[in-house]
Amino acid sequence: MLQHSLLVGVAPQITRRVGYNALVLSSVRLSASRSFSSCARRYNHLNDRQATAAAVGPHKNDTSSPSLAVAATNHGGDVSHQNPAHHGDWVLFHPVYTPEELKAVEVLHREATCFSDKLAANLVKISRWGYDLVSGYKHKVIPPGADMTLQQLRKEGYVLDEKQWLERILFLESIAGVPGMVAATLRHLQSLRLMRRDNGWIHTCLEEAENERMHLMTFMTLRNPSIFFRAMILGAQGVFYNMFFLSYLISPRACHRFVGYLEEEAVLTYTKCIKEVEAGRVPEWSDMPAPQIAIDYWRLEPNAKLLDVIYAVRSDETTHRFVNHSLANLDVKTDVNPFALQEPDMHIKGKKIAFERPEAEQYFKETRHILQKISAES
Amino acid sequence: MLQHSLLVGVAPQITRRVGYNALVLSSVRLSASRSFSSCARRYNHLNDRQATAAAVGPHKNDTSSPSLAVAATNHGGDVSHQNPAHHGDWVLFHPVYTPEELKAVEVLHREATCFSDKLAANLVKISRWGYDLVSGYKHKVIPPGADMTLQQLRKEGYVLDEKQWLERILFLESIAGVPGMVAATLRHLQSLRLMRRDNGWIHTCLEEAENERMHLMTFMTLRNPSIFFRAMILGAQGVFYNMFFLSYLISPRACHRFVGYLEEEAVLTYTKCIKEVEAGRVPEWSDMPAPQIAIDYWRLEPNAKLLDVIYAVRSDETTHRFVNHSLANLDVKTDVNPFALQEPDMHIKGKKIAFERPEAEQYFKETRHILQKISAES
Repeated sequence: MLQHSLLVGVAPQITRRVGYNALVLSSVRLSASRSFSSCARRYNHLNDRQATAAAVGPHKNDTSSPSLAVAATNHGGDVSHQNPAHHGDWVLFHPVYTPEELKAVEVLHREATCFSDKLAANLVKISRWGYDLVSGYKHKVIPPGADMTLQQLRKEGYVLDEKQWLERILFLESIAGVPGMVAATLRHLQSLRLMRRDNGWIHTCLEEAENERMHLMTFMTLRNPSIFFRAMILGAQGVFYNMFFLSYLISPRACHRFVGYLEEEAVLTYTKCIKEVEAGRVPEWSDMPAPQIAIDYWRLEPNAKLLDVIYAVRSDETTHRFVNHSLANLDVKTDVNPFALQEPDMHIKGKKIAFERPEAEQYFKETRHILQKISAES
Repeated sequence: MLQHSLLVGVAPQITRRVGYNALVLSSVRLSASRSFSSCARRYNHLNDRQATAAAVGPHKNDTSSPSLAVAATNHGGDVSHQNPAHHGDWVLFHPVYTPEELKAVEVLHREATCFSDKLAANLVKISRWGYDLVSGYKHKVIPPGADMTLQQLRKEGYVLDEKQWLERILFLESIAGVPGMVAATLRHLQSLRLMRRDNGWIHTCLEEAENERMHLMTFMTLRNPSIFFRAMILGAQGVFYNMFFLSYLISPRACHRFVGYLEEEAVLTYTKCIKEVEAGRVPEWSDMPAPQIAIDYWRLEPNAKLLDVIYAVRSDETTHRFVNHSLANLDVKTDVNPFALQEPDMHIKGKKIAFERPEAEQYFKETRHILQKISAES
């Protein structure tokens, strides 16, 4: 009965989200102790502790060196793994997608209705325009029937080369990691100063922040950006962090909406990127293997390609698009985070821009009902 | 072999740390799938999802009401539980202490040597002095052989009444929740803008922040503070958050040292509080039952008393004292967080003020070695 209701009820969504760091995974021990064999339990948390051992451990193959010190420019490659069971549990969660989900993502846009929505949408438009200007990007559609070589297309600015793609992605991700952390901080501080429960929002925000940071940790393994580019990221973060912080103090709702629109752009960008790679217009990436850190994080096949990573990243951005547009439809002061228990899978998040408040209410009610039913049966 | 090495190796420390929120605990499913029966796995994550269902769910017994909305002043009591297996897994981790550990805590002080340490120590002294002044607290030792009633002792300012104790604790905790979140934010932002791995510090900082917030969520269930008191907390947070943020930008090392000294004061305060309660000088608390949220969080017995909660909170503060003093002994730029894999238990943290860098190195090396050995055997 228990397994059954779980299979039909909660499991499908749950299987999308896996992982956490070692300290936390030892939770398995306690909740497990009421439910299954201690051997299984130990083995289980063992994997995760080992994962973290590998994850935060100094340089690859450094078992000989006890030093705590790791290179300051320590990149993705510093994770030394022995077997798949030990991968990547030093993070909040691992999104894992089925092939169908990866393809289920659609480019969607939410029409801005009220003033604050229009403001958010336009701010995103302006930011994108500004970055395109600075990075010298122009959206030029290849004229139908144009017979140009890749070199010509790149020269004419019809297509980006892999260096340009990577810079766009690195910049996007270094910015995208900010809002979640700001939102989590401000909700944490509010809970402290108003002595009030948070209603489950903080962890979803933290998960978004870490997920975006993992994107950056993944792509930065592909190349070491120039000083100029790093300076641009530094400046952009300085401005954006403070602006977003102040804005979130004024209107959390508008800020989640802003992130929703920002993620619409991200989904658009990654969709174009996938199209370009599959059309063979980014030959450097056609057969590039996925970085190890990405294989660990998204649980990809050992022989996964960079293209698989881009598909996974696009799905993550789709989640943030859906979650933030949905949160922006709620009362940020009093509503419970409808995704605190679980999230819909990509077949919903990829095809629906957001839950309206009644839908969120309904979704949360159903989730709780399923879990209460299960717990009554267990 | 596996179980054995775990029992003698990792388990003792691990058993102190349990729990996490539902989304994250579904990690059990994946790592588990390599190790034990799917039934156990489902049941296991079920507990945690149910816990979150209870945790973030609207008001007690609200299964009839689907509304997302919960009272803005939503207190600890909003958690509706059916059985112990479903308690409190909506947080990062649950410290769980043995009776011996709770008693193993000692009041310790680390002598400030270098300039920044002295600065940190004095800033804490000044802050404490300032708060004592504002809150009208004077440290007066009861004259030996003084034959005074409790009313007289309180009137003369020799002992605090329960209202004064609670105000001190609420203020302390509302401040103590800030540094961990600031440190996590700034390390996150640094990782983003420098495109550099974090080396496992962020989660330890987040755990500290949440742990302190849970203290506040626990004690605030005892009374609803006055407007004046709330205003004081609001102002204090505004000043402290910004000062700590800027200070952490300048010297993370000095900031972790500052928190180390702050937590020394916290351990001192809670130790005095325990002594007073046990001496019967806070009769209102002598037999007061533990709030439900505290029973969930620290996995206390159903009939636990408030005194048990104060013992547990003191142990938490001891952890922060030890962790922050230890982190302040490291190179914040390049060193791996030695507690990313696990932490020593209270028999070490309670009796030792901190790990010096070589000790931290040794500790991290041993932890990794044990885990690698285990994984090789498994």
